[in-house]
Amino acid sequence: MSKKITIFDSTLRDGAQAEGVSFSVEDKIKIVKALDELGVEYIEAGNPGSNPKDLEFFERMKSVKLKNSKIAAFGSTRRRDILPSEDGNLRALLGAGTEAVAIFGKSWDFHVTDIINATLKENLEMIYDTIAFLKDNGKYVVFDAEHFFDGYKENPEYALKTLDSAYQAGADCLCLCDTNGGTFPQEIYDITKLVKDKFEITVGVHCHNDCGMAVANSVMAVQAGAEHVQGVMTGFGERCGNTNLSTVIPNLQCKLDYVCIPQENISKLTHTARKVSEIANLQLSIREPYVGKCAFAHKGGMHIDGVCKNSRSFEHIDPSVVGNERHFLTSEVAGRTTILSTVQKIIPGVEKNSPETGKVIEKLKELEYEGYQFEGAEGAFELLIRKTLGKYKPFFELENFKIIGEHPPYADGRTASAVIKIKVDGRSEITAAEGDGPVNALDKALRKALEVFYPNLSDVHLVDYKVRVLDGNSATASKVRVLIESSDGTDNWTTVGVSVDIIEASWIALVDSLEYKLIKDIEQKFRTFL
Amino acid sequence: MSKKITIFDSTLRDGAQAEGVSFSVEDKIKIVKALDELGVEYIEAGNPGSNPKDLEFFERMKSVKLKNSKIAAFGSTRRRDILPSEDGNLRALLGAGTEAVAIFGKSWDFHVTDIINATLKENLEMIYDTIAFLKDNGKYVVFDAEHFFDGYKENPEYALKTLDSAYQAGADCLCLCDTNGGTFPQEIYDITKLVKDKFEITVGVHCHNDCGMAVANSVMAVQAGAEHVQGVMTGFGERCGNTNLSTVIPNLQCKLDYVCIPQENISKLTHTARKVSEIANLQLSIREPYVGKCAFAHKGGMHIDGVCKNSRSFEHIDPSVVGNERHFLTSEVAGRTTILSTVQKIIPGVEKNSPETGKVIEKLKELEYEGYQFEGAEGAFELLIRKTLGKYKPFFELENFKIIGEHPPYADGRTASAVIKIKVDGRSEITAAEGDGPVNALDKALRKALEVFYPNLSDVHLVDYKVRVLDGNSATASKVRVLIESSDGTDNWTTVGVSVDIIEASWIALVDSLEYKLIKDIEQKFRTFL
Repeated sequence: MSKKITIFDSTLRDGAQAEGVSFSVEDKIKIVKALDELGVEYIEAGNPGSNPKDLEFFERMKSVKLKNSKIAAFGSTRRRDILPSEDGNLRALLGAGTEAVAIFGKSWDFHVTDIINATLKENLEMIYDTIAFLKDNGKYVVFDAEHFFDGYKENPEYALKTLDSAYQAGADCLCLCDTNGGTFPQEIYDITKLVKDKFEITVGVHCHNDCGMAVANSVMAVQAGAEHVQGVMTGFGERCGNTNLSTVIPNLQCKLDYVCIPQENISKLTHTARKVSEIANLQLSIREPYVGKCAFAHKGGMHIDGVCKNSRSFEHIDPSVVGNERHFLTSEVAGRTTILSTVQKIIPGVEKNSPETGKVIEKLKELEYEGYQFEGAEGAFELLIRKTLGKYKPFFELENFKIIGEHPPYADGRTASAVIKIKVDGRSEITAAEGDGPVNALDKALRKALEVFYPNLSDVHLVDYKVRVLDGNSATASKVRVLIESSDGTDNWTTVGVSVDIIEASWIALVDSLEYKLIKDIEQKFRTFL
Repeated sequence: MSKKITIFDSTLRDGAQAEGVSFSVEDKIKIVKALDELGVEYIEAGNPGSNPKDLEFFERMKSVKLKNSKIAAFGSTRRRDILPSEDGNLRALLGAGTEAVAIFGKSWDFHVTDIINATLKENLEMIYDTIAFLKDNGKYVVFDAEHFFDGYKENPEYALKTLDSAYQAGADCLCLCDTNGGTFPQEIYDITKLVKDKFEITVGVHCHNDCGMAVANSVMAVQAGAEHVQGVMTGFGERCGNTNLSTVIPNLQCKLDYVCIPQENISKLTHTARKVSEIANLQLSIREPYVGKCAFAHKGGMHIDGVCKNSRSFEHIDPSVVGNERHFLTSEVAGRTTILSTVQKIIPGVEKNSPETGKVIEKLKELEYEGYQFEGAEGAFELLIRKTLGKYKPFFELENFKIIGEHPPYADGRTASAVIKIKVDGRSEITAAEGDGPVNALDKALRKALEVFYPNLSDVHLVDYKVRVLDGNSATASKVRVLIESSDGTDNWTTVGVSVDIIEASWIALVDSLEYKLIKDIEQKFRTFL
């Protein structure tokens, strides 16, 4: 039978220590709901004693019903010179009204004497009293043994005494923390095993990623007997971040047969990780294990060929298990199989060896030689196929445009303007716009002119704009590749343009983006009509 | 005595499999120089058999002298039905003229039979023949045993036979690859140890990060006896990437007492990792272990307090060991030591706590907040110090410029023109130029106007131009950072500009580039005069 592992998510507490992260109460509630949906057992949501925003959050959480998760509040052991019942932070902790509480205390003697200036004995009493007090008040208590591994390596006897104080006081879980992130996998294994052998109680692990090994360290701790794993949904946190739960959960559950979350929810993992990143306003790395956009993206021709024959040839797990997808990056090296599926979307019935496929490959090679790159630009690739195979009619004709950049800037601070003249069905439209730089001005002018004829374009907004210089050697006359990601609220698509002139490269990508939307809407109507 | 570990860097080969990465020949040479400077032993630089761009690279490398590194070319075992000497890919491999060659071959029986459709015996012969052929041609040969761990787990006997074929044929190193990235630390340890016990030869390890454990797996392999570690400088690569060398090198060298690179170079690690990311045009994560901007950034008040009392309280290593710096996010204190050396170049005698140093740090923080980055833009940094400390007098005044971009292009194909008016010592000069796009036109017009007064500027040419979008969310109105590298045949220097308008960002970097040259020439004259 599979062994149960308690996931103790600290996205809202330790994750909030990451640079650039600052949650509103609303954000926190959204993240709690996403984590509850995924089914983590505990959500450590903040420190009510240190932060008024957290107080408001715990107040509001009292009326939020959760399906799977329990909320934990976080705080430190009582102050050195005060009774637990008189300590403001501990009172705030009780006031948060959570089922569980995590209490951190010092396990490294050097921290006790040199950082908080207590005696070793006082520290043991602080741990004992605090936990006994919280147990008396009916809480599920996790003892976070701060710097446990560093402490153990320098003074094992004292480090174990701190655990024993928590144990004697009735703690429900002893969580061993690698607070500085400097401990190595084998050490984590050996020390966790020793603790597990000494105490008949749930042992947990809390790792930091300063040596890039937080996930491996957590896995090793579980293999040594830990049954409680702390971490952050996509690994962000102070310095190099915390154990990435979106990696460690599938590692344990899909590879080692532990149960971390309800089995039927494991396919929600990619969605949850992306949603949490979105709410935290952090870019999720495309290379993130399991949940990143490229986690199952194949670029090398031999890899693509292998995966088509049998996916286990180059995939350690089926991407759908964690709710992710396989991608073949469209590239000259990608070969026919990848390209075919997109061609078939436009002309059903085309085969691998049909002349249409050959024509598309030829065109693709020619454009890649010029510096185009269609990996991650599926919108542009679809248009390319249409244009190559005669399944395309332009939506407008450009008569001319002129962009003007000025220094010093205009009175309102704008630096550029654009004039554009287009023609649709014999009718001309000339218009102009100002912007922050020439590309922005041209973008605005083109939309303004086109919306006269195609009002549905007003739904489209650009969500990302990337520029890559292709050949630095010619310096300011270098070729550039521009990638534009657009959205109409329902779908996102990416288009690409290449030129020595950044204006022209942006123009190509802009036009493709808007035409893609127009084709998409026509197809949508057509399907509804059928 | 410390044990030597051979670092085999695959940034230019496996790193090039990452989405969004596409190196020019020039980029590759720059990365080779950066890696050589750091002191990695081998640089695997490409596959001459599969890529004409790589062929050009190897040709050009023949005249590049390296201080520390040796170049390796990469290829596969001979085709099933052909002699090694008749295999085009193997001939290309020899033609590359490198000291070392890495050959990958199949170690997983399933891959042999189901993916390359060979018999198990044929595959062993392919491995043997290929390696024997390359040894006969005097190469140092690394055998990359593809999917070794997966293969070993399913058919240990066959997996070991493939190693034995390579061994018998004279391979210099047997490198065990976790090609799909699904192997766990303890398995890597056990299997590596077993191989190490069986073969009296250098054993290597090549890991992928699909389970987020590539670094830990590499460390465990070394602890099991591996003496050769493959990886990519900042971990990018196909899918979730490869072993991150900027993490594994300090893990091994600073924590476990192995020697991976010359000890005096370990402090160049942060600089090298950032430089390689810059050349690859990839954003280095702020949370990257050891080398990221936030690797030693403290946000929590208690952590800051602790670090001020004793840095080991919340730091696993001294950041200066790897050339990084401590940051306190609430009250940013940039590392004075780093900045000081450049300040002293301009004003000798300035000390760490002089008001001048403080002023430069203030200005630097302000500009970094705006999106500037002076890593790898030393030219711009020197000018910044001069401007901040009053050691600067502008060489010209800009009265105004206007750039015009046109579509359709002019009769000669040019798409833009620029008009500029500048003043030097009260004398105005107005001129104009055409170019490939507005930045190129402005660049030409500015030089044309300035050369009237400063003829030595005609030596300057731009060697690289890079654009990075800083905040994709505002799409075509996003902030961009432009980096320009210039050369006068003797020296190269880099300058930087940031703005929402690409023209303005380029302008800032262009002006700095030309002024840097003018200052440099004056100083040169002054020194000659002394």
